[in-house]
Amino acid sequence: MITNTLEIDGERLWQTLEVSGEIGKFRETGLRRLALSEEDKQMRDVFVGWCRDAGCSVEVDHLGNIFATRPGTDSALSAVSCGSHLDTQANGGKYDGILGVLSGLEIIRTLNDRGIETKRPIEVIVWTNEEGARFTPPMGAAMAFVGHIPADGVLGAKDSDGITFGEALKSIGYAGDENAANRDYDSYFELHIEQGPILDETNEDVGIVTGGYHSRGMKLDIRGETAHAGPTAMDQRQNALVGAGLVIAAVNDIGWKYHPENGKSTATQIFCEPNLAGIVPEYCRLSVDFRHPDESGAEIMYVEVQQAIAAAAKRAQVTIEVAETWTFGDSMFDDDCIKLLKDTADQMGQSHVDIMSQAGHDAYAMAHSTPVAMIFTPCTGGVSHNTGEKIELARTLPGVNVFLNAIVARANQ
Amino acid sequence: MITNTLEIDGERLWQTLEVSGEIGKFRETGLRRLALSEEDKQMRDVFVGWCRDAGCSVEVDHLGNIFATRPGTDSALSAVSCGSHLDTQANGGKYDGILGVLSGLEIIRTLNDRGIETKRPIEVIVWTNEEGARFTPPMGAAMAFVGHIPADGVLGAKDSDGITFGEALKSIGYAGDENAANRDYDSYFELHIEQGPILDETNEDVGIVTGGYHSRGMKLDIRGETAHAGPTAMDQRQNALVGAGLVIAAVNDIGWKYHPENGKSTATQIFCEPNLAGIVPEYCRLSVDFRHPDESGAEIMYVEVQQAIAAAAKRAQVTIEVAETWTFGDSMFDDDCIKLLKDTADQMGQSHVDIMSQAGHDAYAMAHSTPVAMIFTPCTGGVSHNTGEKIELARTLPGVNVFLNAIVARANQ
Repeated sequence: MITNTLEIDGERLWQTLEVSGEIGKFRETGLRRLALSEEDKQMRDVFVGWCRDAGCSVEVDHLGNIFATRPGTDSALSAVSCGSHLDTQANGGKYDGILGVLSGLEIIRTLNDRGIETKRPIEVIVWTNEEGARFTPPMGAAMAFVGHIPADGVLGAKDSDGITFGEALKSIGYAGDENAANRDYDSYFELHIEQGPILDETNEDVGIVTGGYHSRGMKLDIRGETAHAGPTAMDQRQNALVGAGLVIAAVNDIGWKYHPENGKSTATQIFCEPNLAGIVPEYCRLSVDFRHPDESGAEIMYVEVQQAIAAAAKRAQVTIEVAETWTFGDSMFDDDCIKLLKDTADQMGQSHVDIMSQAGHDAYAMAHSTPVAMIFTPCTGGVSHNTGEKIELARTLPGVNVFLNAIVARANQ
Repeated sequence: MITNTLEIDGERLWQTLEVSGEIGKFRETGLRRLALSEEDKQMRDVFVGWCRDAGCSVEVDHLGNIFATRPGTDSALSAVSCGSHLDTQANGGKYDGILGVLSGLEIIRTLNDRGIETKRPIEVIVWTNEEGARFTPPMGAAMAFVGHIPADGVLGAKDSDGITFGEALKSIGYAGDENAANRDYDSYFELHIEQGPILDETNEDVGIVTGGYHSRGMKLDIRGETAHAGPTAMDQRQNALVGAGLVIAAVNDIGWKYHPENGKSTATQIFCEPNLAGIVPEYCRLSVDFRHPDESGAEIMYVEVQQAIAAAAKRAQVTIEVAETWTFGDSMFDDDCIKLLKDTADQMGQSHVDIMSQAGHDAYAMAHSTPVAMIFTPCTGGVSHNTGEKIELARTLPGVNVFLNAIVARANQ
């Protein structure tokens, strides 16, 4: 077999994206396909059908992660895996995660078309609730799969209606076998839209992800006391919303301070009680996150965010407790896997550029237990997590073909 | 008749407060009796029953305001009115508004007990939705009654479930006759708990309200754009929540700046969309208000709040539109009515102190069309709009008796 000459069927890939783009369609160009929703179930059913039609065996684990396997010629060898997610943000786009999963399917279809066998199995994985839009934390199902966090916490997480991850999983019929989680892999590759502007601006073909931004998030419980916003003097108020506002302002300042080093921090979510005009609020829950390319930079930002929280609590006369934290980007990708992607791109004549990922990905979880690499494809204007997310097939094909040939090469090692 | 010697039946007043305190009971010591809710209907029904039992005629206008009238001996004379509200905040107390209404009922019962007639009718009014906890604006039904704002806007206001004031009014059976709104009064008196600490701290018997703080509120529409909080650089974000946070922080600073002059400003309510951890929010609605004893002080604060809004919009790269504003405290109370309350207290040997009201009251609305005065009674620690709101009967009786004797005196003029 001549290596690095395989090409997928671009039109067929595009058609699968278009089918997906109708399931949970939102605001003309977007998707709202929250994890474990009815729309997510529909998409999973369609995907599983496609995989079975392509001759794959399909297993589902107790976290709802789906594993579609094309057998290899040597049953003693562990699989080369790839994958991403099919759930979206509430105001999400049609490609984030989805392109990676459907590119994996397209690899299998392409090998089938040509009657090509590989030594190792090739497995396409759909991770549950990568986005975290419905259940906290994001990437939880992948993190629990590799044992990085406890599965119980993931299954017990509640959405805003009080429904647990585990209940939602059962209700859509995707609560599978716990033993399916004990899987061993040769490697894991993930293809994803860049969610940033570099490839679009530089016109490079593919991005090779060399690592992730060090990213931390936290949820704050801010507690004050209700009072009438009229008679209560400033020094007698314990306004939880003022506490939140001071944290938001300070975290924004910290983000700007580290902007020259590509650091960033922000607040994205707030709940306020009783949340009535004219009544001093007694409680706020606030989500903040911050990211920095260097671990030391992230650590400094963390210290400054903590100082800002303490200062805000004092100024607003409220208590602020850090209720939950998450962190990612501290796991390293695999040099051999990265080199394979670069060599493949070189040999195919595709230009490539190194990129640090700033968003979280399931690959971060897999990197805790398996050699991992990621490849980025361009998205227009770098827009993502937005219904305006957009890709072009012609700009996407180079990346998918590099992905295809690298995976096949690895599966024949 | 010897003036200023009448006394109400304190135990009976307390019993009516206790009945009221069970209708919409919330968190042991509080009430959640939102305007035009099922609880509000129950309380209205009980109150109307009490008034009819006391021989009053009862009318309801198209805004749900209830008018219970005890006839006078001269049917050509306009009534001396008094009243307040029976609705509460979501985390409200048992006395705010309610004490004023039930003290009015107690006046009528006391006069009935003693067989005392007055020249003018005495009328007890229950104003709909004074709190504004369910429908904006607060005091809207009283403001529309006097023609200060259009009734259509009040009837069309929607609660958070999209139900209009008018629909809710019909559903509880309190949409009355529009012509009932064309009423003419000799005067209006309102008794209310102080909602501040002055009487409690100074141990004075009653507060005589000489005017209201100049108070303004606004709702802000803050618009940015959704984006992934990861890859999006600080200078590319348009985070509506950051815009809101900067306004909250700045408004808090303005409040502290005018704290030495008894000014205050704060933010109390926020809605955020899509409100998901990790997604830059595209929209926030924020309620802010500010109050100052002097009109010129309130005007300066208004200018500073507007400057802060403009600066926050620029810094957060969002647009901020002032969607709604309200103002109160610009109507003056009546010198003769104030003097009558003070003289009555003096003659009864009750100590009194002048107080500027910092909260809004239905009396502000009535002051646009009728001579008005207000009397405050002590509440423990000045706590209000809180389930911990508390009064003592012994500290309340002096105020209610001054209220009674002043109203009887006015009704015999």
